[in-house]
Amino acid sequence: MTEDATTAVKSVLDALCFDANGLVPAVAQQHDTGEVLMLAWMNRDAVAETLTTGRVCCWSRSRGRLWRKGETSHQVQPLRELRVDCDGDTILLRVEQEGVACHTGRRACFYRAVRDGALVEIAAPLIDPEKLYG
Amino acid sequence: MTEDATTAVKSVLDALCFDANGLVPAVAQQHDTGEVLMLAWMNRDAVAETLTTGRVCCWSRSRGRLWRKGETSHQVQPLRELRVDCDGDTILLRVEQEGVACHTGRRACFYRAVRDGALVEIAAPLIDPEKLYG
Repeated sequence: MTEDATTAVKSVLDALCFDANGLVPAVAQQHDTGEVLMLAWMNRDAVAETLTTGRVCCWSRSRGRLWRKGETSHQVQPLRELRVDCDGDTILLRVEQEGVACHTGRRACFYRAVRDGALVEIAAPLIDPEKLYG
Repeated sequence: MTEDATTAVKSVLDALCFDANGLVPAVAQQHDTGEVLMLAWMNRDAVAETLTTGRVCCWSRSRGRLWRKGETSHQVQPLRELRVDCDGDTILLRVEQEGVACHTGRRACFYRAVRDGALVEIAAPLIDPEKLYG
C-alpha cells in the first residue's frame, strides 16, 4: 500500500459512522455524466480495499462477503474519487463504469420511473445478463 | 389526491422492499446537473406524501418522524421524477433543489473528498446555517 493510500484509508475510516451492522451505503455515480448507477454497501474492509486498489469493492449483504464489483461480470468500476457526506454515514463513489452497472444488463439500476401514474421501465438491457453471469 | 397520484403511490409501494425498520434509502439528485445532493430515508408514508405533493418528504431517523425537506430551512426539494432500482430497495429522487441541500449550508452533503491521501473539504457553505435554522 502506498503511503497516500494508507493515510487516505485512515482519514476516511475516521470520518465514517458505520451502522449497527458495520455498514454504510455507497452511491456509485459515473464521474463525468453524473448518472447515478447503483447503491451498494461498504464495511471498513471494503472502504480500505477500494481506496487501496482504486477499484470499487463493496459488501454483499446477500452473500455476506466482500464483493469486488465486476469479479464475475467483468463490469468493473475504477474509482475516480471517493467522497463522504456531512454526517459521515454515506459514501459517494465517483467511478468510471466499464460496461453496465446493473445485474439486469442495464447501464444503471434505476431504470424504473413514475410516468403518468405508473412505474414503468425507462431503459432496456444493453447486455444479456446470461452473457455476464452465465 | 389525483387519480394519477393514487395509482403512482400504489405502483411504487408495490415495487419497494422496505428494510426491517420500514425504510429505504433515497438518493436525491439535482435533475439537470446530475449532482448528488444527499441521501435520506423514506418510509411508506414519506413515499406517498412525496408523490402526492410533489415535494420531497423523508423519514428523519434522528427525530423519529416525517420530515418535509425545507420545513424549517425553506430549502425545499420539488420532485421532478422518482425512480426505483432493480431490487426495489433504493429510491432515486430527481429534484429541483432550491438553495442548499446540506444542513451545513453547502449545496450538497458530499463536500469532503480524498485528495493526496487525506479527506479534505472541497466546497464551502453558501449560506450561514444560523440563517437557515437560527
